[in-house]
Amino acid sequence: MKIDVLTLFPDMFQGVFKESILGKANEKGLVALNTINFRDYANNKHKTVDDYPYGGGAGMVLKPEPIFSAVENLLEKGDSEYKVVLMCPQGEKFNQKKAEELSRSEHLIFICGHYEGYDERIRKHLVTDEISIGDYILTGGEIPAMAVIDSVVRLLPGVLGNETSAGNDSFSSGLLEYPQYTRPASFRGLDVPDVLMSGHHKNIEKWREKEALRRTLERRPELLEELTLSKEQENYINEIKLKPKKT
Amino acid sequence: MKIDVLTLFPDMFQGVFKESILGKANEKGLVALNTINFRDYANNKHKTVDDYPYGGGAGMVLKPEPIFSAVENLLEKGDSEYKVVLMCPQGEKFNQKKAEELSRSEHLIFICGHYEGYDERIRKHLVTDEISIGDYILTGGEIPAMAVIDSVVRLLPGVLGNETSAGNDSFSSGLLEYPQYTRPASFRGLDVPDVLMSGHHKNIEKWREKEALRRTLERRPELLEELTLSKEQENYINEIKLKPKKT
Repeated sequence: MKIDVLTLFPDMFQGVFKESILGKANEKGLVALNTINFRDYANNKHKTVDDYPYGGGAGMVLKPEPIFSAVENLLEKGDSEYKVVLMCPQGEKFNQKKAEELSRSEHLIFICGHYEGYDERIRKHLVTDEISIGDYILTGGEIPAMAVIDSVVRLLPGVLGNETSAGNDSFSSGLLEYPQYTRPASFRGLDVPDVLMSGHHKNIEKWREKEALRRTLERRPELLEELTLSKEQENYINEIKLKPKKT
Repeated sequence: MKIDVLTLFPDMFQGVFKESILGKANEKGLVALNTINFRDYANNKHKTVDDYPYGGGAGMVLKPEPIFSAVENLLEKGDSEYKVVLMCPQGEKFNQKKAEELSRSEHLIFICGHYEGYDERIRKHLVTDEISIGDYILTGGEIPAMAVIDSVVRLLPGVLGNETSAGNDSFSSGLLEYPQYTRPASFRGLDVPDVLMSGHHKNIEKWREKEALRRTLERRPELLEELTLSKEQENYINEIKLKPKKT
């Protein structure tokens, strides 16, 4: 997979593209990560990439030409299958399903604005996907692009090694993860629950299922509505509702 | 405000903490951004920070001692008011209200795990807030911490200069932003809507309000349910529903 990021702040990506999973995947050639400063495509003497909005109002708007040219230059190099993703607050809310969809693409091009709006012609005639990572205001699309890229690259074949585990993930079962404990068994008088030390696998499994249900019920009850629960899970939930505090 | 980030990958933050708004705010002394590798607080010869989960299962779990020690070392330096924020998928969903709440703190400490779970005693006895930036799987808490930090720091007094504008933000009115256009008026035969070129301020305002409603209705209709709409806005919505395609 090729991933190109159009940004006015390519240096923001230095650390994230060099370290950890993304850095290793890039080194191994499993993904080619690249940043492009679209100011280089500004076809005017002052290298201007933004201008005042037509109709007035505060803020600046990113001009269409530099971004169209930068994207087209990347595509000229010959791509059959690609997506041009605009990071913006008005976009589709990012989720795991979208990460999986993007991970099946050969070439992803991300457009990151910074403080500014995008000329509508970019949205309508260049972009294939508009994505928001959540309902909070950020200074630019760079950090959101990093989040999307991280979630997509970890899904590519060969990227996750033994150091990671899919079983460790919230959301893969539809429930939040149960509480985890490791050594020491007692830390400042705080002890690991007896059941986890018991070696009784069936009880451990039951405890974990119940605690995952409890945590989901307490924190994200709406996730339960999307699941088909077993009779046993429903019984657990009723038990938890009767004795809510006993964790 | 002081912001400390506990991570095993401090270099991931290099670019983001040096560039743009965060870099400038740090330089000007409006915020003190700092990363701490909590491996330095591992009190064992191999500098181990994780271990197998009690009760078995895939994945590793971050041990309590190094993280407790690292946080306590930061607090020893004398703080009255602080928050210890755990970045994790099981956390409270981050939003603009939470950003505002965090921006009123004097000292924020972020804990970023990477691939791994957290020992439950960290959650229960050290952390004040658990935050998730959205329902998608990432390889670590580092990029989510960057998102939260960016959204918090831009709210601090003196951080946003003239180059940015609050009016440019989606969510501040409860609606998605209306389409923006800038020069050229015609780009490859794609023209700016006439009304924006008319100089008729009242019509421009009406058009923008209607297009903001249209975009919100098409993309995020649930946002409308949280608003008290004016009679005029309701009329617009009825018009849009009758003629949905005419943008």
